[in-house]
Amino acid sequence: MESRQNIGFPEVTLRLPGWVGALVAEENRTYPTVKERMRFAVGLSRLNVRNGTGGPFGAAVFERETGRLLAPGVNLVVGSGCSVFHAEMVAIMVAQRAVGTFDLGGESLPDYELVATTEPCAMCLGATPWSGVRSLVCGARDEDARAVGFDEGAKMSEWAGSLEDRGISVERNVLREEAVGVLQEYAERGGEIYNSRRGGDRS
Amino acid sequence: MESRQNIGFPEVTLRLPGWVGALVAEENRTYPTVKERMRFAVGLSRLNVRNGTGGPFGAAVFERETGRLLAPGVNLVVGSGCSVFHAEMVAIMVAQRAVGTFDLGGESLPDYELVATTEPCAMCLGATPWSGVRSLVCGARDEDARAVGFDEGAKMSEWAGSLEDRGISVERNVLREEAVGVLQEYAERGGEIYNSRRGGDRS
Repeated sequence: MESRQNIGFPEVTLRLPGWVGALVAEENRTYPTVKERMRFAVGLSRLNVRNGTGGPFGAAVFERETGRLLAPGVNLVVGSGCSVFHAEMVAIMVAQRAVGTFDLGGESLPDYELVATTEPCAMCLGATPWSGVRSLVCGARDEDARAVGFDEGAKMSEWAGSLEDRGISVERNVLREEAVGVLQEYAERGGEIYNSRRGGDRS
Repeated sequence: MESRQNIGFPEVTLRLPGWVGALVAEENRTYPTVKERMRFAVGLSRLNVRNGTGGPFGAAVFERETGRLLAPGVNLVVGSGCSVFHAEMVAIMVAQRAVGTFDLGGESLPDYELVATTEPCAMCLGATPWSGVRSLVCGARDEDARAVGFDEGAKMSEWAGSLEDRGISVERNVLREEAVGVLQEYAERGGEIYNSRRGGDRS
């Protein structure tokens, strides 16, 4: 069967840009506080813009207790040609591959935390419970992303509560100003704000 | 930089099971009616269960006008160790890779239709507008999936309207009974219903 598997249907590979590995190699890969974790994620978002590898969004999965970095993520939608590759999705996919399971909340595993430089869009919000992370930390707010033209999708106003109902704690506004700064830098550079041309409703 | 890119961070590869290519090679790859498209997707879901390659969900992206198959998808969560690999996400990712763009709604492209054997969970719902498809066709209902123990995530009750607000037409209940039959077959075989152990809220 192996020889037939690709008849007309390509494989899809998610690959972090080279600069991510280089950045992390310079750091100690342990980020004890939530602010340190967010600062790392904001750094990813900024370098993603400056290196031209994607949109102004960064994320990372950490061991919640120790702060050890498990997986970084950056928005790779345009460069990878894949609308799924938002920063949070990339971090989740790389984290699960690193651990070797679809469920980061598995019983033999430490608790994991997802840190995202902007509050999740509807897709990333929906993906969060399935990932198995036990907490979500956000920087910029929905409205900050919308202010520069990004579309967050159709989210319930009580989205944070919907995660907490599932045992996922949510912390917001962590280094919000720094995260917003990268959104603004991207907009000022004239970065592509994709797919937001469609649909009048940005609720 | 290339040599540094994987320092500690693995690549993630999405690969359709071999039997998908074999199945499609036997068919003419054009499905003029919505029912034919759904019948193909239900066939994928059934074979995914019987071949032991994943959960009871199938999806596919078609050229809307001609019915030409662009990309099939099946649930590959457990086997691939990736919670993102729901059938709809797989079909979208393979379709975008086949076309070479993150936006299936691009101006030089035909309209594309996403056919899914069960109404989308919160993640796949959120992913649909970003994909660029212009229509969504569903078989089994949310409540059918919940009836066998699957968790659809926290969705707005007016989720179909939220897509239509963005110019994506939604058709529901297409071959619902056949699609439900595969959900039930999976449950009767004792298939793994993952992640639904967490969170009391299955709304």
